[in-house]
Amino acid sequence: MYKIRLDTSVKQLISFKQCDFSRELNMKEQIRIAIVGYGNIGKAVEHAVKQNQDMELAGIFTRRTPAELVPELDDSRVFAISEAKDFVDDIDVAILCGGSATDLPEQGPLFASLFNTVDSYDTHALIPDYFDAVDDAAKKSGKTAVISTGWDPGLFSMMRAIEEAVLPDGANFTFWGPGVSQGHSDALRRIDGVKDARQYTIPIEKAVERVRAGEAPEFTTREKHLRDCYIVADEAADLERIEREIVTMPHYFSDYDTTVSFISEKEMTVNHGKMSHGGFVIRTGRDGRGEGHVVEFSLKLGSNPAFTGSVLVAYARAVYRLNKEGKSGAQTVFDIAPAYLSQKSSEELRKSQL
Amino acid sequence: MYKIRLDTSVKQLISFKQCDFSRELNMKEQIRIAIVGYGNIGKAVEHAVKQNQDMELAGIFTRRTPAELVPELDDSRVFAISEAKDFVDDIDVAILCGGSATDLPEQGPLFASLFNTVDSYDTHALIPDYFDAVDDAAKKSGKTAVISTGWDPGLFSMMRAIEEAVLPDGANFTFWGPGVSQGHSDALRRIDGVKDARQYTIPIEKAVERVRAGEAPEFTTREKHLRDCYIVADEAADLERIEREIVTMPHYFSDYDTTVSFISEKEMTVNHGKMSHGGFVIRTGRDGRGEGHVVEFSLKLGSNPAFTGSVLVAYARAVYRLNKEGKSGAQTVFDIAPAYLSQKSSEELRKSQL
Repeated sequence: MYKIRLDTSVKQLISFKQCDFSRELNMKEQIRIAIVGYGNIGKAVEHAVKQNQDMELAGIFTRRTPAELVPELDDSRVFAISEAKDFVDDIDVAILCGGSATDLPEQGPLFASLFNTVDSYDTHALIPDYFDAVDDAAKKSGKTAVISTGWDPGLFSMMRAIEEAVLPDGANFTFWGPGVSQGHSDALRRIDGVKDARQYTIPIEKAVERVRAGEAPEFTTREKHLRDCYIVADEAADLERIEREIVTMPHYFSDYDTTVSFISEKEMTVNHGKMSHGGFVIRTGRDGRGEGHVVEFSLKLGSNPAFTGSVLVAYARAVYRLNKEGKSGAQTVFDIAPAYLSQKSSEELRKSQL
Repeated sequence: MYKIRLDTSVKQLISFKQCDFSRELNMKEQIRIAIVGYGNIGKAVEHAVKQNQDMELAGIFTRRTPAELVPELDDSRVFAISEAKDFVDDIDVAILCGGSATDLPEQGPLFASLFNTVDSYDTHALIPDYFDAVDDAAKKSGKTAVISTGWDPGLFSMMRAIEEAVLPDGANFTFWGPGVSQGHSDALRRIDGVKDARQYTIPIEKAVERVRAGEAPEFTTREKHLRDCYIVADEAADLERIEREIVTMPHYFSDYDTTVSFISEKEMTVNHGKMSHGGFVIRTGRDGRGEGHVVEFSLKLGSNPAFTGSVLVAYARAVYRLNKEGKSGAQTVFDIAPAYLSQKSSEELRKSQL
């Protein structure tokens, strides 16, 4: 590591293009990362890049007015998303931090036609279509794109595939939480009279214990998770009607045991600002002689977006290397060998981690 | 799946070579597995092959007299290890099930010069040398060899690398057990006056709890694991002397809190025949803003050799595919993408597991 660190004031005097010069001073090549979209995950990626010695942040690209966006780290530079195409020689990997509903369906293929990309697209039912669209764009441009990574989809998906491969006669169980579900919180906020809302997904301990003990029960939806809702209501709102609308809402709540608590705005701010989350992927199975085995992968995350950002950054390293090896097109966690994620060489990994 | 299943009596009428004909009747290609060495792991592989629809057992190769070896499954055929070279056209992957001390250092490079191979070589300090020897042989023969897989080394190694990559600012902890350590049991049996012995490695709950809570303590060896020994002694043996020799034995026991119990031969047979094992790889770390995260991979195994055998078989699938793609040389778990382990296509994985 002979990275030259310039202080912020000096850095600001140097324009973006000139920064290539400081890169040439580095003894070790840096992977130049762009952040596309500056929400919770974009911010997490900004911090995660700092934790990885072999990376540097080329810039944050936003749909907002760049001058009005104040990044969390002083030395991060901000550009308009529309300018991104002018930076094709300055960015090794663009990490797409937008949402799956509207941002990524458009940005995924568009950015893959210009850059190597990584994203956390998570609309499960539409993943095959999204894969095809990004794959097509990336193959045409000769770029590499990892779609749908993070922790679920992402590391959890990888573990489901590995656990199933090593224990073919068995069953997979994924539990999420305790943690805030963004999608369910959004659904609550769409109810008339709801000012703010937070929904915690909570795995049911009894169900988890049965699986950990090696059983393979056929759970109903209700038996696996609870849904715990905290609502700030408008002053004049009919609380009974809101509660009824919540617990009967199809897809989101009607199949679960759901609890609803009405709280003050202050309580929401003080007690429900945490973004912690987690979950576990468990496979129980039997070997050819009938002995039972339990394989579990679990996460306890202080911050859901921060961990997602960290995973995206590790996959950015993989994408960079795969593209250098001449691989193009869309990839998922299933297609990427662990060594590509690591800062260590294969030789170092064999020595220290095998 | 249109696999034609012949009953055993018919099968026995068909000689090994003619079996290629029945293979051509299969609509889906079968991976032909050879087992080299028929101890606990060899037997486990024999059963594991049966659990994987895309595989068949080509034969068991033994150093013993083939006619004297009775395989656990009726339709397994047994050959002399010296004949293996005559079967180069009939075997897709040879799974080397011998020990790391004397078998694999010789068999690894030898078999990699003839076949694609998988092994569970686990002498940590010598892995780099072993890798080079197998790599050299496999590159010359154009074969692919996965070395040092199973659960540790193997899946645990993979998890250490992945967890470190996604949480670069943190610490890794590996705990083993509760389960029998073969190496430590062997060390006990070498003591004068010891007829039989079993040593259980037991993780210390308090240490595990601290790590799971997100701490990153600097443990001494003594603080992580206990060693629990069960001894059948010769009738005339000095039990105090045996116990003293055990607890003061350097490397194996002197750095641990070790308990010693003397039991009868019958008790050993009845209560200590289980080959269950397990353990966990935990990484605790902090993201760029200082929030704590805990990532854990854990195994509870009804049978240590059975699970190891299952993992070897999944990597045999990977080796077969990698070789078909033209990849040759030695590989480890770090070099292999999860999709290669799975019976499912990448497309099926994206649909069902992502």
